[in-house]
Amino acid sequence: MNNYQRRILQSGLRRRITVFFATVLLFLAASFASAQEGRLVREKVHGTSLEKTSTGESADRFVSIYLPPSYDTAPNKRYPVVYLLHGITGTDQDWTNAWRKGEAWQNLPDIMNRGIAEKRFGEMIIVMPDAKTNWGGSFYTNSTVTGNWEDFIFKDLVSYVDGKYRTLARATSRGLAGHSMGGYGAIKIGMKHPDVYSVIYGINPAVLDWGRDLTIENPSFRFLATNKITSPEEALKGGIYAIGAIVVAQAFSPNPEKPPLFIDLPFAVVDGKMQPAEPAFSKWQENMPVHMVEKYASNLRKLRGFRFDSGYEDEFTHIPPSARALSAALTARGIAHVFEEYNGDHRNRMMGRMGRLANEVLPYFWLLLDADK
Amino acid sequence: MNNYQRRILQSGLRRRITVFFATVLLFLAASFASAQEGRLVREKVHGTSLEKTSTGESADRFVSIYLPPSYDTAPNKRYPVVYLLHGITGTDQDWTNAWRKGEAWQNLPDIMNRGIAEKRFGEMIIVMPDAKTNWGGSFYTNSTVTGNWEDFIFKDLVSYVDGKYRTLARATSRGLAGHSMGGYGAIKIGMKHPDVYSVIYGINPAVLDWGRDLTIENPSFRFLATNKITSPEEALKGGIYAIGAIVVAQAFSPNPEKPPLFIDLPFAVVDGKMQPAEPAFSKWQENMPVHMVEKYASNLRKLRGFRFDSGYEDEFTHIPPSARALSAALTARGIAHVFEEYNGDHRNRMMGRMGRLANEVLPYFWLLLDADK
Amino acid sequence: MNNYQRRILQSGLRRRITVFFATVLLFLAASFASAQEGRLVREKVHGTSLEKTSTGESADRFVSIYLPPSYDTAPNKRYPVVYLLHGITGTDQDWTNAWRKGEAWQNLPDIMNRGIAEKRFGEMIIVMPDAKTNWGGSFYTNSTVTGNWEDFIFKDLVSYVDGKYRTLARATSRGLAGHSMGGYGAIKIGMKHPDVYSVIYGINPAVLDWGRDLTIENPSFRFLATNKITSPEEALKGGIYAIGAIVVAQAFSPNPEKPPLFIDLPFAVVDGKMQPAEPAFSKWQENMPVHMVEKYASNLRKLRGFRFDSGYEDEFTHIPPSARALSAALTARGIAHVFEEYNGDHRNRMMGRMGRLANEVLPYFWLLLDADK
Amino acid sequence: MNNYQRRILQSGLRRRITVFFATVLLFLAASFASAQEGRLVREKVHGTSLEKTSTGESADRFVSIYLPPSYDTAPNKRYPVVYLLHGITGTDQDWTNAWRKGEAWQNLPDIMNRGIAEKRFGEMIIVMPDAKTNWGGSFYTNSTVTGNWEDFIFKDLVSYVDGKYRTLARATSRGLAGHSMGGYGAIKIGMKHPDVYSVIYGINPAVLDWGRDLTIENPSFRFLATNKITSPEEALKGGIYAIGAIVVAQAFSPNPEKPPLFIDLPFAVVDGKMQPAEPAFSKWQENMPVHMVEKYASNLRKLRGFRFDSGYEDEFTHIPPSARALSAALTARGIAHVFEEYNGDHRNRMMGRMGRLANEVLPYFWLLLDADK
Repeated sequence: MNNYQRRILQSGLRRRITVFFATVLLFLAASFASAQEGRLVREKVHGTSLEKTSTGESADRFVSIYLPPSYDTAPNKRYPVVYLLHGITGTDQDWTNAWRKGEAWQNLPDIMNRGIAEKRFGEMIIVMPDAKTNWGGSFYTNSTVTGNWEDFIFKDLVSYVDGKYRTLARATSRGLAGHSMGGYGAIKIGMKHPDVYSVIYGINPAVLDWGRDLTIENPSFRFLATNKITSPEEALKGGIYAIGAIVVAQAFSPNPEKPPLFIDLPFAVVDGKMQPAEPAFSKWQENMPVHMVEKYASNLRKLRGFRFDSGYEDEFTHIPPSARALSAALTARGIAHVFEEYNGDHRNRMMGRMGRLANEVLPYFWLLLDADK
Repeated sequence: MNNYQRRILQSGLRRRITVFFATVLLFLAASFASAQEGRLVREKVHGTSLEKTSTGESADRFVSIYLPPSYDTAPNKRYPVVYLLHGITGTDQDWTNAWRKGEAWQNLPDIMNRGIAEKRFGEMIIVMPDAKTNWGGSFYTNSTVTGNWEDFIFKDLVSYVDGKYRTLARATSRGLAGHSMGGYGAIKIGMKHPDVYSVIYGINPAVLDWGRDLTIENPSFRFLATNKITSPEEALKGGIYAIGAIVVAQAFSPNPEKPPLFIDLPFAVVDGKMQPAEPAFSKWQENMPVHMVEKYASNLRKLRGFRFDSGYEDEFTHIPPSARALSAALTARGIAHVFEEYNGDHRNRMMGRMGRLANEVLPYFWLLLDADK
Repeated sequence: MNNYQRRILQSGLRRRITVFFATVLLFLAASFASAQEGRLVREKVHGTSLEKTSTGESADRFVSIYLPPSYDTAPNKRYPVVYLLHGITGTDQDWTNAWRKGEAWQNLPDIMNRGIAEKRFGEMIIVMPDAKTNWGGSFYTNSTVTGNWEDFIFKDLVSYVDGKYRTLARATSRGLAGHSMGGYGAIKIGMKHPDVYSVIYGINPAVLDWGRDLTIENPSFRFLATNKITSPEEALKGGIYAIGAIVVAQAFSPNPEKPPLFIDLPFAVVDGKMQPAEPAFSKWQENMPVHMVEKYASNLRKLRGFRFDSGYEDEFTHIPPSARALSAALTARGIAHVFEEYNGDHRNRMMGRMGRLANEVLPYFWLLLDADK
Repeated sequence: MNNYQRRILQSGLRRRITVFFATVLLFLAASFASAQEGRLVREKVHGTSLEKTSTGESADRFVSIYLPPSYDTAPNKRYPVVYLLHGITGTDQDWTNAWRKGEAWQNLPDIMNRGIAEKRFGEMIIVMPDAKTNWGGSFYTNSTVTGNWEDFIFKDLVSYVDGKYRTLARATSRGLAGHSMGGYGAIKIGMKHPDVYSVIYGINPAVLDWGRDLTIENPSFRFLATNKITSPEEALKGGIYAIGAIVVAQAFSPNPEKPPLFIDLPFAVVDGKMQPAEPAFSKWQENMPVHMVEKYASNLRKLRGFRFDSGYEDEFTHIPPSARALSAALTARGIAHVFEEYNGDHRNRMMGRMGRLANEVLPYFWLLLDADK
């Protein structure tokens, strides 16, 4: 190649040739890519953290795992992993069943397949554990009665997944998200274990702080304080909040000495009036992320990404103001985060082609997690 | 009186006579009452709690005292007392000067005179101390550099007033209110000393919690962290928030070893970035009432009345959300209180015939404080 | 009386004597006053405005009227009047029955008696009509199917009351208030008839504007659009909002040609999707006070007092944001008003010694209405 | 190929081969792509809609145009176009100058280059007109004094761009966005011309409705009503809102008979008090999008995408509540849209790698506009 040729290449030809090939290749790649789908497996993972519980939980938990399209054909490729935590009374299958039958973009595997095909985000492994306890939900918390769910999530499960699948087994390629109770779990476990997860997303996260439907004024607390409950069915007579209060108490203020619920309640009737009851009230508050920011501020600074959202028409009315309170507590300290309130409720904006999983949650992880790109 | 007469009286006559006399008497009383005005005195009160301060505060403080119309003519009558605390950079004369010249209902004595005459509330003594420090405000807090202002308010001043004036010297007849910094003071001192005051009203109370203009993002903190300030005039170059931050720091995170400001700041520049700085950050938070509710919950339950408000267009933008947060923290625990957000800003709804002092604050104290009625 | 005596009197003696007598008289008056109670009557008022309705409403309506303590004994005294409008599915007896059995301050007559005795406000006549239609509520609106309720309230009823009772029969002594649907009625009728009422108070007023639970997304609209309803019982299967939508439609978008509901609905299913349906949608909006401010701005300026409030935990979730929107629309134009959001829900702060009727609503009318004081 | 081979291919081999090639090709394409940058041109566009204005605007406007990386090397390729409108007192160069010097992702061309390279979105042409008038801003509105800016944007400019550049010249490939005053323009022009643009994004859009700093209470209105202003410099003495009010008035309530401002003001002093002044007040309101929804509802339904956002700490305090009001008005009618409030202010979250332009605005257009993908 002589000088003249060099100058030409330097002044544009090389660029044009490059672009020509790139265009051709991209076109071919896109054509092929649309044929690809990931694979969903469901298996049982033993949680040593969940053995011997007062409430008789199974320590062998279902886990649904989405493996991206190239997983079976690129045998040396490793992938970032996002752990996705379901809400109260749900299971891993909340994510894998279609929310609206017969429509596209209505469950996690379909969103992954389509989102990857449309290049909204790249190939990631998604891990969805089942954290439904016998009373309805673990709140992803270490409890002396329902098991050490925080440990199960960040230790047992991560260890199992990294051991069995071709993950990028490092925090910078590992994210944690969840919805409602799962959003709570993502935020709480995230702020405690930045060495395990580097990116956190809480979707409509519950129980970040007291407020609205989560105060002494919720009649479910009086119902629980004044009725003898022996089964979830009986609890439901006090409304869904009665079930909610029981599982939160089993997580935050467990009491192995008090069958069959094994809880201390945060409120009691004193002189005919509802009042906070210790130690449970303080234990609840200590487990609310707004009140954990101070303690875990330096951890939160280590995260690459911390994001959460709230539909301002959420029917669980404590969520919007407590999510704002979490943002305020973070902002006060200059802890970087993204918080969005949007026109929606607890569930109606998650799924779908224009939904937040496809457009906000998954692209956020793809943007911030290290992949073998 | 025969039976017939008795029946008549029982069936209405007695009532009519009673009403006739009552009407006559009320008419006469009202005629006289309109001629009456209270009396304003201003004197100096020595505060042993304020001696020997790093910032050279005077321990002899002006106090304006409103004595109600009958004070000089009813020599055995005793009165309930409301202590009224001014805001930052203000003095006792904030309350006694006319807010709008030439108009009625524009200062505290005029509001008292007119409100008593119109029977909106009854005769009370109002005590207005001067808590302006050399840098601009005490935040009514015990400080190792500006003096023990909380002690001055609830001990020295109460003792002086009860000793010199014909007060009803008991908590059930003693109230505490304030505006902005003074609203902060009323709420904080109120939740610590329910044995001294039984009714509390915070008007547009400041610094209840972090948020909006009270976070690390306020550029005044960077200004203070990166400039050597030696006088209030220099501080003002960083905006009014710079003065505010200094006096809050002198109250919450004082440091006698660091002239001339004698403060630790809650934020510092680390690696070019603003970050919380301990111990000051935690000390600030510990002094914010939203974070004090847990500790003083049982005190708060002892109050007869606890009320605060916020104009939702307040230019100090942390006030509305932090006032809501205080209400949420109280509601969570079932602590009775009244909280109102209203269409107004930091000052435009306080004074005037339709203002909140005349229609909300003073009637609230009159309703709840014991008087010799 | 010589000069010396004159000087003494001028310098204080006269004042002391005056005060002495006033004190004595007030004491006597207060002793008598506590013995007095008002009287409640309930009678039927014929509404020519309500004759010949499609829905078969009775044109003879119950009206409860509270006459203050002196009414029977001061035969020449005339009183200011406050009209008080009940909410949906309610009647005049919402105000007169005790909200909490066995407790004081739990209905309007008791609040009046006690409030007058405590001098929170003076003697007023309170008029409480029954505006419950056969489907559940009139929305105090002129309708071609349920009758001209606006006319009934501001013409028939006022004319009847002024004709029969010793009222101060002028706008400056006449106020209008209401709760929920009644708050809507008070605000709407108030902004249309400042020549009849000079002071307006809307308590948790409903349907001020679209929003939250009052949008196309409320499933009750789909229920109504897709089911044939022939009775209130059937409507209730679609939830209370289904009943609400029917009565609002009977008021705002009536259609005499369409038995048995006689309504046009504001939404219809088009291509399987809910969409606004004209003319009903526009008629609804035209009847929402936020959208009426522009038209009635000059009327609103004529009012002596315009106030409304909202508990920010109201379970009818459109109320808080639409009340804020009304305040914003008024503020934009400089129309004086008072708006407060408070810590409470749709009903829990109205009654009681510390409730808003006793402390906000009734004192507001007493303050602003002309009485023979 | 025999049947056996066919079965093998059908059962997996074909897929693996496909994936292998796709992977290779994608890798190659990605390597080349990173070398590419787009090109920025700035030229003048004549606006016949802007000729002969009272305020002497130039009808030849600067327009900055970003052409994506492949534009010069793929001579037959056509691209979707996004029009991007700047805010008050700004120009097209607001978008092209670096917001933070020396940092990446700090202007539109850099965000495009990097975003395309990272595959966050694909190649689009971005058109940024200069709409700064002599007084500071056009508000993208047809005005009898400053010119027909709406026409310039949707007719002259679109015609020019489609004529000169290789655009996909159809609504389904054309989007419109803007910030602040530009967000206003995007929403207003978007709801009027769905045949021209199919996707709309308003970033912190201003003047959607009255509220907070945009009411009669803003002292700038009194300043303008009581001072003779002859230049922008003089106007600025009344604060930035004075300039804002002038340009809004030149857009919404122009008056060619009134030099030098050529406006009617929406408020005037009457009897010493500020009051709405017609016809300007109504004209302003008619131009506010919240009040335009009813009229343009069917247009809004034609849009593929309608999205807007608001930083809830926006210093222009009418923006957050009026953006919520717009969402409520849309929701009431079932008009699909996305609205988000986020933790940020008027500008601090737009730029940057994690900013909203790169993560929300541009991917939204790429998702919804038709490209030759």
